[in-house]
Amino acid sequence: MTIMDTHQDLATQQDTFRAGLEANDWLLPTLGDGVNGLGPQAEDVVQGIAAAARRIAAELSPEAGTRRLRFPPVNGTRLLERTDYVASFPQLLGTISAFEGDNKAHRKLLSMYEDGGDWSGELSPAGHALVPAVCHPLYAYLEGSQVDGTVFELMGECYRHEPSPDPMRFVTFRMFEAVRLGTPQEADEHREKWLAAGTDLLRALGLTVEADTANDPFFGRAGKLLSAGQREAQLKFEILTEVYPGHPTAIASANLHEEHFGEAFDLHTADGAVAHSACFGFGLERVALALAAKHGFDVAAWPASVRQELGLS
Amino acid sequence: MTIMDTHQDLATQQDTFRAGLEANDWLLPTLGDGVNGLGPQAEDVVQGIAAAARRIAAELSPEAGTRRLRFPPVNGTRLLERTDYVASFPQLLGTISAFEGDNKAHRKLLSMYEDGGDWSGELSPAGHALVPAVCHPLYAYLEGSQVDGTVFELMGECYRHEPSPDPMRFVTFRMFEAVRLGTPQEADEHREKWLAAGTDLLRALGLTVEADTANDPFFGRAGKLLSAGQREAQLKFEILTEVYPGHPTAIASANLHEEHFGEAFDLHTADGAVAHSACFGFGLERVALALAAKHGFDVAAWPASVRQELGLS
Repeated sequence: MTIMDTHQDLATQQDTFRAGLEANDWLLPTLGDGVNGLGPQAEDVVQGIAAAARRIAAELSPEAGTRRLRFPPVNGTRLLERTDYVASFPQLLGTISAFEGDNKAHRKLLSMYEDGGDWSGELSPAGHALVPAVCHPLYAYLEGSQVDGTVFELMGECYRHEPSPDPMRFVTFRMFEAVRLGTPQEADEHREKWLAAGTDLLRALGLTVEADTANDPFFGRAGKLLSAGQREAQLKFEILTEVYPGHPTAIASANLHEEHFGEAFDLHTADGAVAHSACFGFGLERVALALAAKHGFDVAAWPASVRQELGLS
Repeated sequence: MTIMDTHQDLATQQDTFRAGLEANDWLLPTLGDGVNGLGPQAEDVVQGIAAAARRIAAELSPEAGTRRLRFPPVNGTRLLERTDYVASFPQLLGTISAFEGDNKAHRKLLSMYEDGGDWSGELSPAGHALVPAVCHPLYAYLEGSQVDGTVFELMGECYRHEPSPDPMRFVTFRMFEAVRLGTPQEADEHREKWLAAGTDLLRALGLTVEADTANDPFFGRAGKLLSAGQREAQLKFEILTEVYPGHPTAIASANLHEEHFGEAFDLHTADGAVAHSACFGFGLERVALALAAKHGFDVAAWPASVRQELGLS
């Protein structure tokens, strides 16, 4: 069973899907463009996927162990510089501004908004920014340390400024990530094992998926070269599924960063070499919505094996 | 047992507590001022408190039922206007800016940051803002509807721009909230029941707590009047505990909003009257840290009854 009518064009399919998600309390509209709340069933499914991912993390735990850490959706603006995000993906980032004025400045702000103006341009940079990928705060936290192949299990909220009529594309969404820092071999092995286990989980949930090489959306003209290089070196794989027939959407990704973060944050292995890193991430809302597209909006009617995998029965 | 030395002054006590939290992996430093990650034990305790709160929600569920919804940490900037937050608490809000320039604007941005300048002032308001209280997105979601005394169970992340050396004060933190919208009687009853049940839970966790009237930190000269009025009308109660002896910290609050949100978002009851609302919230990180101050940093050594209440044994 699929909710999609394959004869509609892509934009119509996206609108139809969004309408179904909203009518069935899966997506809750907010006042933010591209920002959605989740209803009870959608949230249960998100939590079920995260729990299944934690089971994989326990099964694949290396000798050095697995550590579960938690970072909030906000970090220092400086993190966007240190990870090269402002250089590579300026179109996606979000920084935070705050009001630091007095009574007089506040009166000005209020009169602007009473006149229907945009008062938020009056604020000052707060030194805070939204986190675009849940593994970024980890590298800053580990800065200057020796790494040993431990896997870090992270779940958190990301912000990427790309409002879209496609309900599969959230401006703010949760990601489960398993990150390993260590030797090149440890990073490779991590990426390979998780890509296989992640694909298996998504298939066990009834999704038709396929892994393929991919590239991040590097900005601008120079970015085109970076994208081509990333794809050619097979640094990024995505797990894709066709929520809209003929138009695959990525619902998970597996990345080798080579020395990128090791160098930026002075991370090294016991032999003094720059650490390599790799991560695997599930886009939790995207997986949940792909499951709704596949199995329908009524979770109670989903196949028993899928419900069991998600801890829902 | 308490970790605090009562002979130190407050600032020293805060520094000592922070040092202990960091040394024991309870708080993980980030690049953001006042922003902390959580280590595995702290996160387990946060999840345990949230689970205990959900049990209370199930026990106190009214005839109209309880609905669990989930809103992300970001919403439209317009939400800050509609809730009166920009008028009442401008000093705490955070809005989001994004980069919408071309290659040339990007080169300027990069040269600013290579020169060590603050490039984030070059960005444009994105129409998005951080959510300061997890119940605010709910009112916007319900806009224009009839409410019937249903309780809404929410857990989410808040941002309040008040960096502080006190580890109990997070710029970004999670809140569990139980919100009820309905008649004045339904709102009153909700606040009363949750204030009692929340106090009981915190006592069962071994904390010495006390409920007291309080006020929100309304901005500026005019705000002083609002604060006094709120306190006099007993609209806000806080549950306080002394992490620092002699200096109570709020770890939960119970609020009557009267018609404030009902009026702002056109919410009404079956008889056509403007809906009243009330909410009860636990500051999850604050409760977790208060427990660490009380029972120590090693959760395995906490009293069996506390571990059981948190689902940790």
